[in-house]
Amino acid sequence: VTLDDRWIQAAQAAAQAARAAITPWYRAAVPTHVKEAASPIVTEADLAAERAMRTVLATHTPEAGVLGEELGHDRPELDWQWVLDPIDGTIAFAAGKPTFATLIGLLHEGRPVLGLIDQPITRERWLGVRGRPTTHDGVPVRTREVAVAQVRFATTSPWMFDRPGDQAFLAWVREAAHVTSWGGDAYNYGLVASGGLDLVVERGLALHDWAALVCVIEGAGGRMTDWSGAPLAPGATDVVAAASEAVLEAALTQLTA
Amino acid sequence: VTLDDRWIQAAQAAAQAARAAITPWYRAAVPTHVKEAASPIVTEADLAAERAMRTVLATHTPEAGVLGEELGHDRPELDWQWVLDPIDGTIAFAAGKPTFATLIGLLHEGRPVLGLIDQPITRERWLGVRGRPTTHDGVPVRTREVAVAQVRFATTSPWMFDRPGDQAFLAWVREAAHVTSWGGDAYNYGLVASGGLDLVVERGLALHDWAALVCVIEGAGGRMTDWSGAPLAPGATDVVAAASEAVLEAALTQLTA
Repeated sequence: VTLDDRWIQAAQAAAQAARAAITPWYRAAVPTHVKEAASPIVTEADLAAERAMRTVLATHTPEAGVLGEELGHDRPELDWQWVLDPIDGTIAFAAGKPTFATLIGLLHEGRPVLGLIDQPITRERWLGVRGRPTTHDGVPVRTREVAVAQVRFATTSPWMFDRPGDQAFLAWVREAAHVTSWGGDAYNYGLVASGGLDLVVERGLALHDWAALVCVIEGAGGRMTDWSGAPLAPGATDVVAAASEAVLEAALTQLTA
Repeated sequence: VTLDDRWIQAAQAAAQAARAAITPWYRAAVPTHVKEAASPIVTEADLAAERAMRTVLATHTPEAGVLGEELGHDRPELDWQWVLDPIDGTIAFAAGKPTFATLIGLLHEGRPVLGLIDQPITRERWLGVRGRPTTHDGVPVRTREVAVAQVRFATTSPWMFDRPGDQAFLAWVREAAHVTSWGGDAYNYGLVASGGLDLVVERGLALHDWAALVCVIEGAGGRMTDWSGAPLAPGATDVVAAASEAVLEAALTQLTA
């Protein structure tokens, strides 16, 4: 399938709407009408951004369904599906770190064909479209050419690696990789596309966490698969994003060992 | 000792000079004259920023010595000592994450009397001066009033917690704290002052890593000590920064158990 520009314009417009919805909540005081104890600001910002994106997408691409983290799955029977995560990195958002992201993915018959990572505070945006070069704020980017011993590894939390065998992977990373950057959520995947990081491995993700990332990584020359090396498809939860085939293979060898 | 405004102006001017020195290197390509394999960009930016700060400080406060991460200790016998870390969070800087920071601390007879945390990309600055309210971009900030069960914990890397007993502390955090944010370096301490985070615990820091943080935390109503609860003094390596006395005590109980 070749993607016409209308889909790209829809994603850009949705990201812009999400930025406008999220920015006022960043580091905001808790409003008096919000009662929840845990992360009320995140909830309000999440909902506002997802509603804003749904409104834009319904106008631009009425032939697509929408699956959002907050508001469920609208028309799941359609071939085209938007997959939305209004705020990926809710802890970063709540803490006031500008590394959370809005994620907009587009699947055609279950296959990622477009992905967008937007950071509303630094006003950065990565856009990946199947068959086209990934861009960062409109400028094409490439993953880094790097030896495995020079890899910059990132993952959001060591607590993702709790199952038997996972600790062996982290031990390998600590020994083999040049440096490790903790935290970061989806922002890390944008940095892989831009060549700042080289390998991200995470476990237990939902579709809305990774749907937007695949085209960003692959359009920059990287590779993104599940932990067995298979293409990511709905239902996948464990992901690897690598700057190159060689880095991917080095990580997969450890993950499937 | 009461600090006159000249010291504050010196710190602000040094931070401004460091910003100007660092910004061109952020996400820059490796220049051809740089030969090191590891993190050449960081080294160049680090050196440029420390040189720029030393020039400014020598003009404004000739009666102070300067200890910098990169260029050694100039006149250590003096009562007043600037302590500089041009880029705290070198991995974040190399990866292109806007959470590294320039740190400027001032010690008088070994005691922290001024601290400044600057983020050159988001253009944010926390300033703490003993006896005055901490500011974030000129606006006074306060730590959050929070129950221990609602604490937002942050630390740069789980690999800081390698000694016997440290894993028990992390297990307590995972159970007791509301959320944990990994990564972040000195930026986390600014967020404690602003009320976005509530507890940071780290091990193995150098003087230049923490000298700038104490006044920022304490001027916002927080507490910062070593792992035994003692005030931080040159030679200390293990630190706790907490939103309140209650959060500090809860953490110290686990750290000294």
